Amino acid sequence: MFETLEVGKQIKGSDFNELQQQLRERLLMAQLDLAGRDYPVIIVVAGLDGAGKGSLVQQLNEWMDPRWIETNTFWEHSDEEESRPYFWRFWRSLPARGQIGIFLGSWYTRPAQAAVGEEMGQEEFALYCKQIESFERLLTDDGALVIKLWLHISHDTQQARLQDDSPHRKSMPRSSDHPYELRGKYNRTLEVSEQLILATDSSHSPWQLLEAEDRYYRDITAGELILEAMLYRAGKEPAAAPPHIPATELVTGPQPTVLNSVDLALDLKGDEYREKLEHCQAQLRDLGWLAYQQKRSVVAVFEGWDAAGKGSAIRRVTRAIDPRLFRLVQFSAPTDEERAHHYLWRFWRQLQRDGRCTFYDRSWYGRVLVERVEQFAAPAEWQRAYSEINRFERQLVEHGIILLKFWIHISKEEQEKRFLARQNTAHKQHKLTDDDWRNREKWHEYELAVDQMVSRTSTHHAPWTLVAGNSKPYARIQILETFCRTIGSALEA
Amino acid sequence: MFETLEVGKQIKGSDFNELQQQLRERLLMAQLDLAGRDYPVIIVVAGLDGAGKGSLVQQLNEWMDPRWIETNTFWEHSDEEESRPYFWRFWRSLPARGQIGIFLGSWYTRPAQAAVGEEMGQEEFALYCKQIESFERLLTDDGALVIKLWLHISHDTQQARLQDDSPHRKSMPRSSDHPYELRGKYNRTLEVSEQLILATDSSHSPWQLLEAEDRYYRDITAGELILEAMLYRAGKEPAAAPPHIPATELVTGPQPTVLNSVDLALDLKGDEYREKLEHCQAQLRDLGWLAYQQKRSVVAVFEGWDAAGKGSAIRRVTRAIDPRLFRLVQFSAPTDEERAHHYLWRFWRQLQRDGRCTFYDRSWYGRVLVERVEQFAAPAEWQRAYSEINRFERQLVEHGIILLKFWIHISKEEQEKRFLARQNTAHKQHKLTDDDWRNREKWHEYELAVDQMVSRTSTHHAPWTLVAGNSKPYARIQILETFCRTIGSALEA
Repeated sequence: MFETLEVGKQIKGSDFNELQQQLRERLLMAQLDLAGRDYPVIIVVAGLDGAGKGSLVQQLNEWMDPRWIETNTFWEHSDEEESRPYFWRFWRSLPARGQIGIFLGSWYTRPAQAAVGEEMGQEEFALYCKQIESFERLLTDDGALVIKLWLHISHDTQQARLQDDSPHRKSMPRSSDHPYELRGKYNRTLEVSEQLILATDSSHSPWQLLEAEDRYYRDITAGELILEAMLYRAGKEPAAAPPHIPATELVTGPQPTVLNSVDLALDLKGDEYREKLEHCQAQLRDLGWLAYQQKRSVVAVFEGWDAAGKGSAIRRVTRAIDPRLFRLVQFSAPTDEERAHHYLWRFWRQLQRDGRCTFYDRSWYGRVLVERVEQFAAPAEWQRAYSEINRFERQLVEHGIILLKFWIHISKEEQEKRFLARQNTAHKQHKLTDDDWRNREKWHEYELAVDQMVSRTSTHHAPWTLVAGNSKPYARIQILETFCRTIGSALEA
Repeated sequence: MFETLEVGKQIKGSDFNELQQQLRERLLMAQLDLAGRDYPVIIVVAGLDGAGKGSLVQQLNEWMDPRWIETNTFWEHSDEEESRPYFWRFWRSLPARGQIGIFLGSWYTRPAQAAVGEEMGQEEFALYCKQIESFERLLTDDGALVIKLWLHISHDTQQARLQDDSPHRKSMPRSSDHPYELRGKYNRTLEVSEQLILATDSSHSPWQLLEAEDRYYRDITAGELILEAMLYRAGKEPAAAPPHIPATELVTGPQPTVLNSVDLALDLKGDEYREKLEHCQAQLRDLGWLAYQQKRSVVAVFEGWDAAGKGSAIRRVTRAIDPRLFRLVQFSAPTDEERAHHYLWRFWRQLQRDGRCTFYDRSWYGRVLVERVEQFAAPAEWQRAYSEINRFERQLVEHGIILLKFWIHISKEEQEKRFLARQNTAHKQHKLTDDDWRNREKWHEYELAVDQMVSRTSTHHAPWTLVAGNSKPYARIQILETFCRTIGSALEA
């Protein structure tokens, strides 16, 4: 989930000034508009220690009119609060209709800290998350707009920032009770954070995750997200016509995505490839039967760019598995019957029985990829799909299904080369359509969609594998090895 | 929760025929209209064994056009189902847009049975309920209308029906796996049912509870509820103009409510009253201090008819408690500031610290009483208030607060007597307003609102006490005794 938040998104100082000016004006307008409306805006600023939650809140206060903002921190626990039900402190800080309330440290602080410190068990944590969800639903049912920002920084950045012992830092209280105790618990914190985000991500109050390495990027992006949510809630669609590139990128140029982290130079040749292929396929053959004996299913999802080599990679997998044990299902536009049901319905119905493999050539991720980019799904529909998908996949995993998800990545140049090759080879011409060329024009939009998809759905229980696809042999072996490793470690020896 | 479902609601055979004819026509129209719409209707029929779930479903199939209804039962577990994630069986049975799917036995069967049989622990049960809620939210987010009916019968009726060993009964499968095992577990079943209903009652898919003693009443009421929900979802408000008396009662006359079960003849006189009063007040004085020492708060809610004697009853309580230990808060129309917040906000903020008492003279129940009847709150608002209130009260109780809720009941005649007495007594005239006379005209509407309020919010953790108020002395003692008993048993001796 968080690997996509360490790709180096940043904004230059000069760009920041330009962006800030526009943003500020629009935020003020939105705030003025809000004053006359009958709902409040509740902004939760959460995330890792040292990610700059405090500075962001300061920036927001500077940009907007502080007369109609109240900032609430909960790092000092008064005995007034302690002697009442836990949520009393939040209730009394709720903004009135027409106002903005910023919560720095919020109902998320306690479960995060308690779970990291292992003072709270798994069940208590889960029930607490349910309570948060009820609370937020109660607010949004009443009309409130709840915006939740999660700020992430890398391990190294956190270390550096927390070691900054300059005097003003020392005297500055942090939202956490045990500020420096988290040092050394970075990985545990991420684990808990992921659980917390997954359990409280909902259609009515979704999380927004953002990379907070660069403070310019952090502040501008947070501001844009808040603005967009406020406009959307007020019934004013953001002006940005498709293509849906974030307003910021019109000034800064495209920001890096998680796909930039894939090393496309990786290659495998000749004998080495053939040896590995043979070895992996033999191993996978055995694992297929072993899974059958142990009644463990495998579900594998294949997504990727057009011409990324999905089909041929899948064939390398299916050849290794007894045809009685798997079903390969392909998805393009839904049928009439499928369209008459929930979008997940057609994927549920293809699920094979315990002990079998189901390979999905394209999948439920179409909702947040093609349906998002081509606007077949409304923003609210694809935005809530992340949590729907996470819950769907959790059900699979909890049933004992071994889940694999592959995005096969190639460069834009490599795609062009392959398209042209298809055009010029008689028996491959049918594989190339006008749609393929059209999709290519939306490359960056798809990149953004993939980035967010990985960020929101690469979870501990169902991680994505980003496959380096410029070399087809390398991609196939990467996929096969992932299959063997994942299935192998899930089965009893 | 269920005591309101044993008050003897029924419909005569002749009325049934008349009601059935109208209802059938309107249901068919609604079904025809649905066929052209882009969402499905999902009807869950749940409740106690022997309540007639099967017969109701049969009746619904008879009334409506079975070509567009699918009835799903899950009493036979196929190995196809067992070898896939649990919800797969429901997914594959979901109706298409424009269709109705009836679920007889559903996602509620498993947790209910497992919890009654104690095969499922408290935490697993809670997490399962959360899964149900997510599933239903996913459906309703996609547009589906989810109608959930809970059928209740009394212990005696269940005994009688389950002992009916006539041959057609024996060969008829029941939705339950262990049909007759529940015999003798009636109370445990109710306990679990209440937990299940509370945990899965939500603004997007609320429960409807109905008394199923009389099959005519059961079927007509279920049909009316379904019709009303379908019309509402289709954007067609039910024709019924205020006063909001259920369509059925226009034919049958007023049905009994839970208030009919209050014995208004109860009385207390002279010395017996004074003795008890003194005794209770002395006891309560000590309990107040003991609660303070043990840092346990008391929250007491007083509701009741105009002139029921709320004020004077409260005074009998407050006189017994040290003024440093309690606060009495009165609620009428909200202030501007209160109106600018969620309706629960003004009650949250009055909550006193641990060890203190807060007495609410009128309370958050205004939402489902006066605001409902006078239409200050929209139907969606007061309907979702039941679950909001239950969750609010659960937070109080989980914090350790001792919660008491009183509805002081008097007869309509007694009220008139008291109104006239006020009119004719100079120092009491200010207590009588035109509003009081106006509210009186809506007596039955208020009765219905109280009935539903008690049914939906009288829970194991926060039960209602219905006070027999025609005799003021009796009412005061009943309240004081309830105070002493409840606080006494909650505190450590």
